[in-house]
Amino acid sequence: MGSNVKELLEELKNLSELMLDLAYSAVFFKNKDIAKEVVVLFDEIEELEEELYMHLFAVSKRMSKKLISVIELVETLKSVAMAAKNLSGIVLDDKILHPIIRDVLKESDESITKTKISKNSVMTDKTLGGMKFRSNTGIDVIAIKRGRRWIFDPKKNTKIHPEDTLIAVGSVESCERMVKIASGKQTEI
Amino acid sequence: MGSNVKELLEELKNLSELMLDLAYSAVFFKNKDIAKEVVVLFDEIEELEEELYMHLFAVSKRMSKKLISVIELVETLKSVAMAAKNLSGIVLDDKILHPIIRDVLKESDESITKTKISKNSVMTDKTLGGMKFRSNTGIDVIAIKRGRRWIFDPKKNTKIHPEDTLIAVGSVESCERMVKIASGKQTEI
Repeated sequence: MGSNVKELLEELKNLSELMLDLAYSAVFFKNKDIAKEVVVLFDEIEELEEELYMHLFAVSKRMSKKLISVIELVETLKSVAMAAKNLSGIVLDDKILHPIIRDVLKESDESITKTKISKNSVMTDKTLGGMKFRSNTGIDVIAIKRGRRWIFDPKKNTKIHPEDTLIAVGSVESCERMVKIASGKQTEI
Repeated sequence: MGSNVKELLEELKNLSELMLDLAYSAVFFKNKDIAKEVVVLFDEIEELEEELYMHLFAVSKRMSKKLISVIELVETLKSVAMAAKNLSGIVLDDKILHPIIRDVLKESDESITKTKISKNSVMTDKTLGGMKFRSNTGIDVIAIKRGRRWIFDPKKNTKIHPEDTLIAVGSVESCERMVKIASGKQTEI
C-alpha cells in the first residue's frame, strides 16, 4: 500500500473524529456556525475518499468516482445484509420481545417453514405453476436453495428438484402440510 | 463494467433482500431455523463481495481481500462523518430538543467558538506552548483550519498564523475572550 494511501487514511480518520467532536459540540452549545462547518467538512471527506481510491486502485479521478458508485452500492447492500443478521440474532439469542411485538405475533396466523424436498415428494420434477401450487395449497414459496445457489422469488415455470430446500410462507396448517408434501408423506396437493 | 460485475451486483441485491425478508420472518415467527439460515447467508454476502471486487479491480482473490479491508475502513470512517453531518442537522434545522438534552445544556458552562486570527492579534506567529495559552486562558484550541487544510489536536509547538481559523472550547467567558484576542481587540493573554 503506497504511503499516499496511508496518509490519506490517517487524514480521513482524523477528519471524521474532528467532525464528530464538532457535531457533538454544535448540538450541545446550539452553535449553528460549528454545525455548518461540519456540513462543509463532509465534502472534504468525499474528496479524500476519491483521492484515496485513486491511489489505492491506481486509476484516474474520473474512474475513481465511477468505482465509488459501485463500492457504495456494494457496501450499502452489505449493511442491509448485516442488519438482517443482527435481526436474526434477536431470535437466536432468545431475547425477550417487547409486548407490542408479542401482540403482533399473536394476531398473525401466518408461519414460515424451511423444508427439504425428498425424491419421493409429489413436487419433485414438477413446476410450481403446473401444480397450481399457491392457489391449491395457500403456500407461497418465497425462495429455493439448490446446492449452494439460491433461487429468489420462484416463477411459475420454476421446476422443483429433489434435495431442493424450500422456504415457504403460509398459515400454520399450510406450513405443516408443506412439510408433509415435501417429505412425500402427503401425496395430494 | 464487466457483465460479471453486473451479475454479482444483482445477486448481492437479491440475496440481501432475501436475507431481510427471512430475518423479519424469523423474528415474527420465532423461527430459529430461518434465523440460522440468515447468519449462514452473511458468509455468502462476503464471498460475493470478494468476487465482485476481484472483477471490478481486476485483481487476485488475495488482493481483493486486502482491498476490502481498506474499503471497509474508509466506508466506516465515512459513516462516522455522515453521522456527524446528521447530528449537525439537528442544530441547523432548529429541531426541538428533548427536555433531557436541554437540562444537560443548562448545566454545562462550557462553550465552543470558531474565530479567525487577525494579523493584529497577539497570537499571530506565536506557538500555543510559548504563550502557555491553555493554562493562561482556560481555552482549549481543538482544531485549526489553515486555508483548506485542518490541523487536528494542535500541539505546544504549533504556531498560529494570521488568517487561521481556530475552533476552541472553554467557559462562555473564555470563549468571548477568545474572540477578542483573535481579532486583536484584547492584547493581553
